[in-house]
Amino acid sequence: MATKLSPEDSIALIKANLAEVLNPEIIDNVILKEKRPLKVYWGTATTGRPHCGYFVPMMKIAELLAAGCHVKILLADIHGYLDNMKAPIDLVEFRAKYYERVIKAVLKAVGVDLSRLEFVLGSSYQLNKDYTMDRFKLEGITRVNVAQKAGAEVVKQTDDPTLGGLIYPLMQALDEQYLDVDAQFGGVDQRKIFTFAMENLPKIGYGVRAHLMNSMVPGLGAAVKMSASDPDSKIDVLDGPAVVEKKLKKAVCNPREVEGNGVIAFVEHVIFRAIALNVDRESFTVQRREQEPLVYTSIAKLKEDYAADILTPQLLKAALVHHLNELLKPIIEEYEASPEWQAISLQAYPPEKVAPKVKKVKDKGDPTLRAAAAAARKAGVLAKPDGHVEGPGAKKVTVGPSTEETLEKLKVSE
Amino acid sequence: MATKLSPEDSIALIKANLAEVLNPEIIDNVILKEKRPLKVYWGTATTGRPHCGYFVPMMKIAELLAAGCHVKILLADIHGYLDNMKAPIDLVEFRAKYYERVIKAVLKAVGVDLSRLEFVLGSSYQLNKDYTMDRFKLEGITRVNVAQKAGAEVVKQTDDPTLGGLIYPLMQALDEQYLDVDAQFGGVDQRKIFTFAMENLPKIGYGVRAHLMNSMVPGLGAAVKMSASDPDSKIDVLDGPAVVEKKLKKAVCNPREVEGNGVIAFVEHVIFRAIALNVDRESFTVQRREQEPLVYTSIAKLKEDYAADILTPQLLKAALVHHLNELLKPIIEEYEASPEWQAISLQAYPPEKVAPKVKKVKDKGDPTLRAAAAAARKAGVLAKPDGHVEGPGAKKVTVGPSTEETLEKLKVSE
Repeated sequence: MATKLSPEDSIALIKANLAEVLNPEIIDNVILKEKRPLKVYWGTATTGRPHCGYFVPMMKIAELLAAGCHVKILLADIHGYLDNMKAPIDLVEFRAKYYERVIKAVLKAVGVDLSRLEFVLGSSYQLNKDYTMDRFKLEGITRVNVAQKAGAEVVKQTDDPTLGGLIYPLMQALDEQYLDVDAQFGGVDQRKIFTFAMENLPKIGYGVRAHLMNSMVPGLGAAVKMSASDPDSKIDVLDGPAVVEKKLKKAVCNPREVEGNGVIAFVEHVIFRAIALNVDRESFTVQRREQEPLVYTSIAKLKEDYAADILTPQLLKAALVHHLNELLKPIIEEYEASPEWQAISLQAYPPEKVAPKVKKVKDKGDPTLRAAAAAARKAGVLAKPDGHVEGPGAKKVTVGPSTEETLEKLKVSE
Repeated sequence: MATKLSPEDSIALIKANLAEVLNPEIIDNVILKEKRPLKVYWGTATTGRPHCGYFVPMMKIAELLAAGCHVKILLADIHGYLDNMKAPIDLVEFRAKYYERVIKAVLKAVGVDLSRLEFVLGSSYQLNKDYTMDRFKLEGITRVNVAQKAGAEVVKQTDDPTLGGLIYPLMQALDEQYLDVDAQFGGVDQRKIFTFAMENLPKIGYGVRAHLMNSMVPGLGAAVKMSASDPDSKIDVLDGPAVVEKKLKKAVCNPREVEGNGVIAFVEHVIFRAIALNVDRESFTVQRREQEPLVYTSIAKLKEDYAADILTPQLLKAALVHHLNELLKPIIEEYEASPEWQAISLQAYPPEKVAPKVKKVKDKGDPTLRAAAAAARKAGVLAKPDGHVEGPGAKKVTVGPSTEETLEKLKVSE
């Protein structure tokens, strides 16, 4: 993908592999008439540790970058707090830094150029006076029922929602204006938020944007979408080869069942698209003990073989373990080489429980590991090279700064 | 009231004439132990022209000033916009100035010292980052149902409210903190908002305030509370003697009926309290054609005579016309002497309809009136000395600046 695409190929790649595109003419106009890079925003609330489910939107973002788009990633720290307080507000700053590290590493692993990738912290503009005045305006014209329906598929719904959850769709609309983009990308579960933005931004004087929607992909766990809130059952992007193998073994993958199969979906939406983006990488290869390996260059053929049980769950899982570990390898290497990232990780996700026994970090003489261990000691915990952390025995580990302290940090000077 | 009150008399006057006081010990503590003026806030959304119904809270504010309190009046311009958009947002700036003029003139008419009276514009701090962050925090912990119930008696309720209306009670709670007060004053219709503030401010690290509540007083129109949204049926604080007489004649005032009688309520809660505050003023005197005048120094005796029909509706109304016009006289004089106030009035409440005929302002040679007429002409309308305005014949009067322009003005530089 090193060669520059033609405008038509660029448009085709932008619209490729999506469930739906709203207002595609906006995309055509920017690229064919205005002849400038399309500005697209994707937002993520900075909550739990990003897991391998994040590879699905990342593949689209990689395609957008490969198509020459200017991609703005909103690290929605305030949204993360609003969404039923999944993320304690005092950790959002560190989590935003952690998300930025992970996203960059994932995209680098896929081999796309990151020069048109930009990260924007929600709190950098969502507390500003002009944004707040526009929020007042949108709040003034938005019925409670409308806000509730707009966020229904994204914000965790209860019989008795908080106001915070209702404001989420309004902010996501305003973000399109304040991030100055032509289009917003998200899952098809965001459809009602996107149509809310299209209907309401013009009412306060702003323009309609294009919307790119990924289809919802079944997760690698049970037959439900993966979530960052239950990290033990999800494959972390920093999980080592043995952990990936162990977790993938548990993934639901019924023989001959192609529909709703999370393992096949992952191979289709992540591995095949990673291969397509990176011409230097091998095809999807399934090693067999007694026979020649199965080599797939198309997902259709793979699904056909799976339905016929030529490609068994065991064979497919083993092949995915290999390919996923290949994808994760450079990410883990980057993490292990960066004491700074390791320190961020400890602050973003401090260990809540203290292990009953003290395990000392083995100082192998590696200066990077020594620095990492020193940083971890400074943070009050001991770090193992694989990123898992344990408290130092009898001493109870305290969790980061207080809410008040972090709010002080979030308060940008007037 | 020129002499300084003892701490005990001050506390008694602060708590006087109220339906309810929540956390009175906060008031005692500030005055008896901290030995400093009690800081009290009263808020008003800057919507329609303030009418004589505003005298009821003004009497309490006059008592608070007389008791040595530091009174902060929040001119809630953003609230005025949020409250189901009663006030078009492009007029809020002028309306806030108009409200300040009226409130000061009313309090001066009652004769209290204004040196501890302060006006604060809502938009001067309700768009700031720290306030917005606290609003996010409150929104995150406030259930929709709770916000709806808190505002039920104050915000106009519909089956399908806007988010703006729900945020009203949250802001009113935060205002206590950001205005740095010990107590908030309002009508008993604010009780649920006050208890919302008491319950929720501590959850985000702020203290509980005392709350002073006026009883609800029946209005001078029908048997319902007066509202600024129907100016023709209400007595404006700038209405001249003939208009006051005409409007008061229409007021519901059934013979012998004391309960729910808006005329008696006004005499009790405004006239008697104005007399009590201003020792130089006459008692409440009812002139009679054939008999000696009835002179009342207590409302109990007045009610007794009314129930016995000794004091008839006609006699009572005529007496109120006299006393109310006495009260309004210095306010109207101040307005007529101020071309600046007149110009503000035109911008705050621009005439929507154009009169069929052109009426020229008579230039009586008075330099003040000449200046007023010049200012009015500059504003595109002709002003009559009594404050009523008419458009200049064929030329249609345009309504003030656009919403966008005023929003620009509301945007304080970051």
